[in-house]
Amino acid sequence: MDKPYVLGLDMGGTNSVLGIVDARGHVLARTSIKTQEYADINDYVDALYTEAMRIIEPVGGIEMFRGMGAGAPNGNYYTGNIELAPNLPWKGIVPLARLLSDKFGIPCHVTNDANAAAMGEMVYGVAKGMKNFIMITLGTGVGSGIVIDGKVVYGHDGFAGELGHVTVDRSENARTCGCGGKGHLEAYASATGVARSAKEIISSTSEPTLLRQLDIDHITSKDVYDAAEAGDEVAKRIFDYTGTILGHSFADFVAFSAPEAIILFGGLTKSGHWIMDPIVRAMEESLLPIWKGKIKVLFSDLKESDAAVLGASALAWE
Amino acid sequence: MDKPYVLGLDMGGTNSVLGIVDARGHVLARTSIKTQEYADINDYVDALYTEAMRIIEPVGGIEMFRGMGAGAPNGNYYTGNIELAPNLPWKGIVPLARLLSDKFGIPCHVTNDANAAAMGEMVYGVAKGMKNFIMITLGTGVGSGIVIDGKVVYGHDGFAGELGHVTVDRSENARTCGCGGKGHLEAYASATGVARSAKEIISSTSEPTLLRQLDIDHITSKDVYDAAEAGDEVAKRIFDYTGTILGHSFADFVAFSAPEAIILFGGLTKSGHWIMDPIVRAMEESLLPIWKGKIKVLFSDLKESDAAVLGASALAWE
Repeated sequence: MDKPYVLGLDMGGTNSVLGIVDARGHVLARTSIKTQEYADINDYVDALYTEAMRIIEPVGGIEMFRGMGAGAPNGNYYTGNIELAPNLPWKGIVPLARLLSDKFGIPCHVTNDANAAAMGEMVYGVAKGMKNFIMITLGTGVGSGIVIDGKVVYGHDGFAGELGHVTVDRSENARTCGCGGKGHLEAYASATGVARSAKEIISSTSEPTLLRQLDIDHITSKDVYDAAEAGDEVAKRIFDYTGTILGHSFADFVAFSAPEAIILFGGLTKSGHWIMDPIVRAMEESLLPIWKGKIKVLFSDLKESDAAVLGASALAWE
Repeated sequence: MDKPYVLGLDMGGTNSVLGIVDARGHVLARTSIKTQEYADINDYVDALYTEAMRIIEPVGGIEMFRGMGAGAPNGNYYTGNIELAPNLPWKGIVPLARLLSDKFGIPCHVTNDANAAAMGEMVYGVAKGMKNFIMITLGTGVGSGIVIDGKVVYGHDGFAGELGHVTVDRSENARTCGCGGKGHLEAYASATGVARSAKEIISSTSEPTLLRQLDIDHITSKDVYDAAEAGDEVAKRIFDYTGTILGHSFADFVAFSAPEAIILFGGLTKSGHWIMDPIVRAMEESLLPIWKGKIKVLFSDLKESDAAVLGASALAWE
């Protein structure tokens, strides 16, 4: 059999997880190292290689691998570099793809986390067979990966697909985003965005709500979900507010690339219909007539613990 | 020489202009028929063919032509059909590409006006050599054609690139768009949108302005330009208002596809720096840091009378 496996590296600010993946999207083995323990990127690559060999040797050695994909913060597909990532120990520009392919002796491609997630959905997930879709990751930030004609859109410089930073509120009292901008989608639909909405909505009413018993500065979408499930009206209103902003933005995204589907991944999707219903309602009311009732909104069905490694590994099949 | 020419058809609600174009983008000959005179699409195609032969025979006959491209309202590249165009005499779905290629005996492709304009810029205009750009047409409506990796984006259904219908104002008093939607870019940056802004801004102030002498219901961007050139502060404010809305929207478009340039075509571009300056200022203040100072905004340099025929003809070289 001709090189049946690929390696997927999910590089996060805390942990770096490396997995062996087959063509069906099974993660056969995995290992990890602590990203922050290596002040020098060369030490990081050496340590990763040593760890990797423990799982690579048992499946037949590096000759069995077609290539390697890495999802990293600020990873640039065109250059193979990590560029100015604020949460990694290495400053400036890190030539990650070159360092990894030199060390491992197989081709290596790098991209950012959200583009890797989009690749993972296309190769192994709910977007299998789709040629046009948009991936939205709802986590600490809001990321996106855009697929057109079966290819991830990188733009002229490799940085396309920053849909967390489109402006959804241009008014005076728009929220400040983590990036310094004003009124960006991420400031409303990220984990901290939802927490802030919860605080604002709870503070603005004297209605009874289960959420008032919690520490108002640390409410999570899981807390809001639990309350909504228990019939809490204020909790439902928080999902309604968040979902409406997402749905309106999605209508604009559809006007751009007319995707077959918008696929959602991340913590907020665990709130199920409580977040899905207002998203779809708001998107439908904003879509042009030609698209009404035609654009799917789907949750990812990849196992959360595998998704990032799968997404990165998908790059290596190209 | 192997088929040196292509045909470009610019089908408008009033006139249909057909031109013979060479590889350098010279329009060697042109002819036209009245679109509205043919209640039956077959009669339209027959009349167009008869007219076309008058200019085709002198250059050596149809054997000299590689193909034909048509830009038509609601033209769909995937299907080759015109679909439900409100301003054309034919209702429902018209299989234009098939009818034309059957009649002329050469391959024919159809697209909408704004996508044709984007093709024209890429093949003959300021986007020559660019692989990633966005074309915005500012006329009766606001249209767009998006090019990624050297190809026009059609999306999963052929309708991608409706950037005139992204929402720029989600407030209660947002304008109603021609399409029935609320707060769309087209309601602010089309010819009627600018006229409406002029009326609102003039009515809201008692400042002296040259524009007050004009019929307030029929002010054009040319009137506003003339006044601005004469030093009129209210006229400058109208461009500032319009350009700010455009520039903010452009920043969102950049977050999507990271284009090398945004290219503008249409009546409003004749206002030169009066409209360009506020566009660039607003875009720059809204762009993410990675893109500040890096995205070009350019005016089309195609002759206005040739641009639509050139754009349509560009489809035929593919």
